[in-house]
Amino acid sequence: MKLWQKETRVSEIVERFTVGRDLEFDIHLAPYDVLGSLAHTEMLASIGLLTMEEKEAIHVELKNIFKSIQTGEFSIEEGVEDIHSQVEFILTERLGDVGKKIHSGRSRNDQVLVDMKLFMRSEIKALVEGTNKLFDRLMSLSDQHKNTLMPGYTHMQVAMPSSFGLWFGAYAESLVDDLYALEAAYKVVNKNPLGSGAGFGSSFPLNRKMTTELLGFEDLNYNVVYAMMGRGKAERSLATGMAAVAATLGKFAMDVCLYMGSDFGFIGFPDELTTGSSIMPHKKNPDVFELMRGKCNKLQAAPNDIAMMTTNLPVGYHREMQLIKEVVFPAIQDLKDCLFMADFMLEKITINDQLIQQDKYNYLFTVEEVNRLVLSGVPFRDAYKQVGMAIERGEFKPERSVNHSHEGSIGQLNHAEIKVMMSKATANFNFTKWEKAFEELVE
Amino acid sequence: MKLWQKETRVSEIVERFTVGRDLEFDIHLAPYDVLGSLAHTEMLASIGLLTMEEKEAIHVELKNIFKSIQTGEFSIEEGVEDIHSQVEFILTERLGDVGKKIHSGRSRNDQVLVDMKLFMRSEIKALVEGTNKLFDRLMSLSDQHKNTLMPGYTHMQVAMPSSFGLWFGAYAESLVDDLYALEAAYKVVNKNPLGSGAGFGSSFPLNRKMTTELLGFEDLNYNVVYAMMGRGKAERSLATGMAAVAATLGKFAMDVCLYMGSDFGFIGFPDELTTGSSIMPHKKNPDVFELMRGKCNKLQAAPNDIAMMTTNLPVGYHREMQLIKEVVFPAIQDLKDCLFMADFMLEKITINDQLIQQDKYNYLFTVEEVNRLVLSGVPFRDAYKQVGMAIERGEFKPERSVNHSHEGSIGQLNHAEIKVMMSKATANFNFTKWEKAFEELVE
Amino acid sequence: MKLWQKETRVSEIVERFTVGRDLEFDIHLAPYDVLGSLAHTEMLASIGLLTMEEKEAIHVELKNIFKSIQTGEFSIEEGVEDIHSQVEFILTERLGDVGKKIHSGRSRNDQVLVDMKLFMRSEIKALVEGTNKLFDRLMSLSDQHKNTLMPGYTHMQVAMPSSFGLWFGAYAESLVDDLYALEAAYKVVNKNPLGSGAGFGSSFPLNRKMTTELLGFEDLNYNVVYAMMGRGKAERSLATGMAAVAATLGKFAMDVCLYMGSDFGFIGFPDELTTGSSIMPHKKNPDVFELMRGKCNKLQAAPNDIAMMTTNLPVGYHREMQLIKEVVFPAIQDLKDCLFMADFMLEKITINDQLIQQDKYNYLFTVEEVNRLVLSGVPFRDAYKQVGMAIERGEFKPERSVNHSHEGSIGQLNHAEIKVMMSKATANFNFTKWEKAFEELVE
Amino acid sequence: MKLWQKETRVSEIVERFTVGRDLEFDIHLAPYDVLGSLAHTEMLASIGLLTMEEKEAIHVELKNIFKSIQTGEFSIEEGVEDIHSQVEFILTERLGDVGKKIHSGRSRNDQVLVDMKLFMRSEIKALVEGTNKLFDRLMSLSDQHKNTLMPGYTHMQVAMPSSFGLWFGAYAESLVDDLYALEAAYKVVNKNPLGSGAGFGSSFPLNRKMTTELLGFEDLNYNVVYAMMGRGKAERSLATGMAAVAATLGKFAMDVCLYMGSDFGFIGFPDELTTGSSIMPHKKNPDVFELMRGKCNKLQAAPNDIAMMTTNLPVGYHREMQLIKEVVFPAIQDLKDCLFMADFMLEKITINDQLIQQDKYNYLFTVEEVNRLVLSGVPFRDAYKQVGMAIERGEFKPERSVNHSHEGSIGQLNHAEIKVMMSKATANFNFTKWEKAFEELVE
Repeated sequence: MKLWQKETRVSEIVERFTVGRDLEFDIHLAPYDVLGSLAHTEMLASIGLLTMEEKEAIHVELKNIFKSIQTGEFSIEEGVEDIHSQVEFILTERLGDVGKKIHSGRSRNDQVLVDMKLFMRSEIKALVEGTNKLFDRLMSLSDQHKNTLMPGYTHMQVAMPSSFGLWFGAYAESLVDDLYALEAAYKVVNKNPLGSGAGFGSSFPLNRKMTTELLGFEDLNYNVVYAMMGRGKAERSLATGMAAVAATLGKFAMDVCLYMGSDFGFIGFPDELTTGSSIMPHKKNPDVFELMRGKCNKLQAAPNDIAMMTTNLPVGYHREMQLIKEVVFPAIQDLKDCLFMADFMLEKITINDQLIQQDKYNYLFTVEEVNRLVLSGVPFRDAYKQVGMAIERGEFKPERSVNHSHEGSIGQLNHAEIKVMMSKATANFNFTKWEKAFEELVE
Repeated sequence: MKLWQKETRVSEIVERFTVGRDLEFDIHLAPYDVLGSLAHTEMLASIGLLTMEEKEAIHVELKNIFKSIQTGEFSIEEGVEDIHSQVEFILTERLGDVGKKIHSGRSRNDQVLVDMKLFMRSEIKALVEGTNKLFDRLMSLSDQHKNTLMPGYTHMQVAMPSSFGLWFGAYAESLVDDLYALEAAYKVVNKNPLGSGAGFGSSFPLNRKMTTELLGFEDLNYNVVYAMMGRGKAERSLATGMAAVAATLGKFAMDVCLYMGSDFGFIGFPDELTTGSSIMPHKKNPDVFELMRGKCNKLQAAPNDIAMMTTNLPVGYHREMQLIKEVVFPAIQDLKDCLFMADFMLEKITINDQLIQQDKYNYLFTVEEVNRLVLSGVPFRDAYKQVGMAIERGEFKPERSVNHSHEGSIGQLNHAEIKVMMSKATANFNFTKWEKAFEELVE
Repeated sequence: MKLWQKETRVSEIVERFTVGRDLEFDIHLAPYDVLGSLAHTEMLASIGLLTMEEKEAIHVELKNIFKSIQTGEFSIEEGVEDIHSQVEFILTERLGDVGKKIHSGRSRNDQVLVDMKLFMRSEIKALVEGTNKLFDRLMSLSDQHKNTLMPGYTHMQVAMPSSFGLWFGAYAESLVDDLYALEAAYKVVNKNPLGSGAGFGSSFPLNRKMTTELLGFEDLNYNVVYAMMGRGKAERSLATGMAAVAATLGKFAMDVCLYMGSDFGFIGFPDELTTGSSIMPHKKNPDVFELMRGKCNKLQAAPNDIAMMTTNLPVGYHREMQLIKEVVFPAIQDLKDCLFMADFMLEKITINDQLIQQDKYNYLFTVEEVNRLVLSGVPFRDAYKQVGMAIERGEFKPERSVNHSHEGSIGQLNHAEIKVMMSKATANFNFTKWEKAFEELVE
Repeated sequence: MKLWQKETRVSEIVERFTVGRDLEFDIHLAPYDVLGSLAHTEMLASIGLLTMEEKEAIHVELKNIFKSIQTGEFSIEEGVEDIHSQVEFILTERLGDVGKKIHSGRSRNDQVLVDMKLFMRSEIKALVEGTNKLFDRLMSLSDQHKNTLMPGYTHMQVAMPSSFGLWFGAYAESLVDDLYALEAAYKVVNKNPLGSGAGFGSSFPLNRKMTTELLGFEDLNYNVVYAMMGRGKAERSLATGMAAVAATLGKFAMDVCLYMGSDFGFIGFPDELTTGSSIMPHKKNPDVFELMRGKCNKLQAAPNDIAMMTTNLPVGYHREMQLIKEVVFPAIQDLKDCLFMADFMLEKITINDQLIQQDKYNYLFTVEEVNRLVLSGVPFRDAYKQVGMAIERGEFKPERSVNHSHEGSIGQLNHAEIKVMMSKATANFNFTKWEKAFEELVE
């Protein structure tokens, strides 16, 4: 079934080694492979490399395949090398030699590339949506608990008063900045490599701007050599964007695990969301957040994995670029899962709102006291010493309240502005452009 | 000289360990520390925490310091802990207790943060300029050599005809996509953390939107807890952006080293730009490109270095965040150097324009032949076999020319469109906004 | 089926997220889980926590399970959480409450740990064997081609005469040094954690030295807190050892890919071991070596993946340690595959033994000429200049032969000594100790 | 002053870029460069390439230089390229043309290699000593506090009783396993590359076994091509070994930072070893341990930095290998500093020995209770339920003591055995062999 074989039979050992886990991942590329072929053949017809009749016949069958993918009936048959071969195989079975013509002016290389880019573009949409959903959850929790104080730490030492409002809100705002990294990936991904062949273009008078439009890409990878360089680079950009979100989420998971411990006791979750231990009957383990932390930390290492696999490879396609799928496909799934689980868990989070009353947090309020003195006219260094001395004499009496009013402080969380930042960051993606293009292609 | 000491004397051993290489880097932060203080004191005066006279006196001296930095007369004195202490020390020496007041409503934490962000913002400008300069050089070389064919490789095997125009142009276009990653860093960096104190805000009625405007920031890090999270995150974003540029430059350097070898002989450089060897009198070693490759590969590892240093740290400042300077400061310098050297070297590059005539490149043109047959009506698979058989019989005669006309191919490099892409990518940065703000601050 | 549940039903969403890919990997742990239980119960009986009858009954069934694993009949049933539960489930089904007693004095934590360590210890054996097999192949090729010259490169420039004997032999000798890294991993892995419970030991009077002996471990992880720290650390040690082998193998694969290119043409492989291309009928692509390179480069990143997942986790078990399996299990398989494929491919490698006659390699012999002059009495710097001038005048005539006789040079490869080094490095592992112990356990 | 220049003047810009930070590091190589030259010239004389008089004259001056290095009088002069040039320059100044002869049969490449290997071998000694010193400190603290209970955590949840004895001892035992990784590095480093020239040997009848003996190496890198591969590989092996120690130390630092926080309050340090904060007068920040954690985490990333710089470089020297010094030299210093500081700080650590009395640690003892019931005959699952019910009814009363007696548990720390393991691990290095060789060389 290998389409590129001439006469030589490739040894089975070699085949098993080279095919690897491709089939496992290729099923995710199926719809995009069909969409790419719809656009490519439309273009081939426009430059006379297919007759209108041929194109129509091909489109009918491609749309049938597309539907079978959507209904879950499609699969890659035993012995078929990859998704591209499977689609071509079906077409040839149904249409005869005409089916083979979808390969004209295209190489396996730019076909995989365009599939991967279309797939990643869609996945970025899912990631941006997941990020927004978690953002909304965190903002809502921030709002709900804006008046509940908690200790703020520096150097892991109790430092100054903070609030649950600030804590939840900080991670929400962090997600805004993370979207910029995903946006950078999106811009790299959202350029059309189709028509670059094996990286050197072809002698066919292809109309690459046409397929760019048909597939809803923002622009072309013009230079065909550069288009091929996109293999690995696009995946790494995405991995980098995901690592940004993962860094935020992983850090948050670390906080949650810490704050759920008995020594802190800041937060809790209902029993059905935690797990017990076979010999420690009293424990409520935050397994979900630990696994989230682990997955997110692995995600943070993914760009390095890809960099290691591509560094110092000279220009041009190399076969191991195929292996990058093994890094990036599970990474996407992991991040989507983590975003979902974070939102799912936070719906049920409980807060200890009496936290701040504990004696061990007395010293939280020393800086407040220094500032109160300064505002009443005492020079800073003097106020500082005065409070320090009171502490040394054991006479420091905290007033457990704060009056912070400036932007982003306990008393003024500026949610409206932060939401605007998030909306703008999200609007930059403009997913509707290609969603419309896809609808037209398959209608 | 340590400003935070109370009575306890910190042991010298501890001090040596904790100060580390900070002073070496802090001199680069000097102008930004002064600019930050100018904005902060302007704001303090506006909310009544400084009188107009105090503010004026402070501004006169801060501007003097700024000038001394620009003329190179400024230095951090022996025994002074860091740049912030040095500036405060000078002010107090010249103005007495008023000098100390610049510390009101500010913590060392947000002071360092704003210094770092202003510094990185400026360095991003230098990097974007360096990237543009190299882009122009590559585009110009691409244009100059657009008709000179070279072999295109896949799997490191001679594959299909390519051109020097495509090769140079590919790396130029790659730099466009890299700017998106730098832009993501820029957006993270270009938000104001000043006023976040040690990460929990303060009871002073600070006007953070005012300092945001005075320093030309695009927006605030609103949430003060998030503002402090920016430490490490901003540096990592920048390292990530730099890694993107470095990946392109490092790959290009690999190509250059390979193509300069005797087995390829594609390109050359004049003697004064290469180095000899103590016992191999005939060699022209591409040391500059090897070191560029090495520096760029090290740059690609920098985001991972920072990730390793910050992963699993719970929310709040941790002292080792200071160590990230050791990663990011040299990385910035390395990338600026590499961008400069690439442009500097490429000015003198020579091209072997007779390359393609060699017999070993005969098979380059087989695909062309297949396509010629296809365009004349032979079905693809048949054409493919026909050429394969001709090769096997030793009868294949290449026609050493190509007629590629589609977008991004040998015959149509679409330089105009690529230049537009680069202009747009560069325009996203809008450096003039803060350049103007800076001028107003120090005038 | 979850054994740790009390009354609370854990939500299915949580369960799906937390179970992850464990079952996929756990089947590999099956034999070791049984061996661990055989040793543990033997010890329990010795301290009176099981009667002799109970122990005997348990041993009969454990050995039955062990056989079913070896014959491939064993599997983890639908709905069973992991390998440990499956084994306990079978025992309880067959023996009633007695089956549950294998859990006494043991926690899930030290059970997984000992399974992992036994598994990794066995896999290290497979890796050491694979490495030795490849070493033998390379040494044999080195011997076979010891008189065939090839160019030696520095700075990727043709530099001095080398030989295929040196080239193959270099990678063989490299594998010796790599075994030291695997040995370090082996020493970390080969210490018994059983009896450490959840990381804090237990009040049962366990005899940990007894299980150490029964399982053939070299020593104990004495401190129970340290034993638990082994989770993650053992895997990382192994990943580090594998990365050393992978670095050698990946570099070799790079050489092979380069030297197979038309510009070099140093080596070749029969058609059935290379692959063709859909539109480039003349190419013989080294896909196997490209994939080997990619897999080995990914392997080189694996220690970093694990480091990122474990860094800054305070002492004690954390759930994400389970995820490290996702890194280390496929890595082991990949390295075993790569070692096998390298040997498999090299059996058929062909060498271009006329290589050195090409004009482009004339300058290879300049250093030889300088040295000849020096040996005849001309001062080095003068000889150096003399040859340089001859080259500049175009009068340099190479004598295409070398007379290198010192240790490790073209004329004296010291294979005997290198083989002794390899034997010693391999003997350090002493696998027979635990192989014997295992035989006694299951007989 | 560049020794490799012919007539062509290398542009200053290129020179500045290529020299980099080499001089900064080369001073550390000075003694080893002289030792290498002493051995090399001894060998040259033995094969007749130097007369006995020439050798004697050279040795007198080399020993003078060696003394000037030890007294701190030696330096690399302005304009001299590197340490090797400086030594040769002095010799030539003092001895005329004879001085140049130390270069015979040697290339800059194997000269740097042997310097680096000798340097790293010495530094490994310092690291092993530092590790042993810290091990002793931790063991002594473990012994001193063996009866003080502390909570043991799993999932960051209070789990079971542990002790300070276990905690300190765990990190001590961890250092034993880390030495195996350093030992692997030592074995790679401790083989002689001298005589491999630029990686292809030479036509001189060198006696490489003789220099191996003179320099106290364990063995040779026989194959000259492999010897050159050691560049980068040796550094990476060392970085990997250091990363193992750093992982232990960094994790310990994390524990310390956590346990010093008010919520834990397990341990403390005197004021002069902690630092205050400019606006939080009550805090005692663990800056030293935070910086130790940061440095150790950076150290953990160092092997990846080197891997990224060397991956996919084909066989043969490449100039960027010089840049690896920038990674490995500071890493060595950092680790030595961290080992010293850890020991220095721990001398003053204080322990909260009333810790376990706090109510929040009541549930620590539930497993003990379960086990007590089991030992009294109650089946495990029933005992488990019984305790769980008592907790739910709020009737659980802890007995705050433990009776753990098995190997490695609270009551039996097995210090004697662990110390034996450490002694054996340390004895593997056999530093005295080369220390004696060095004494003979310079006497």
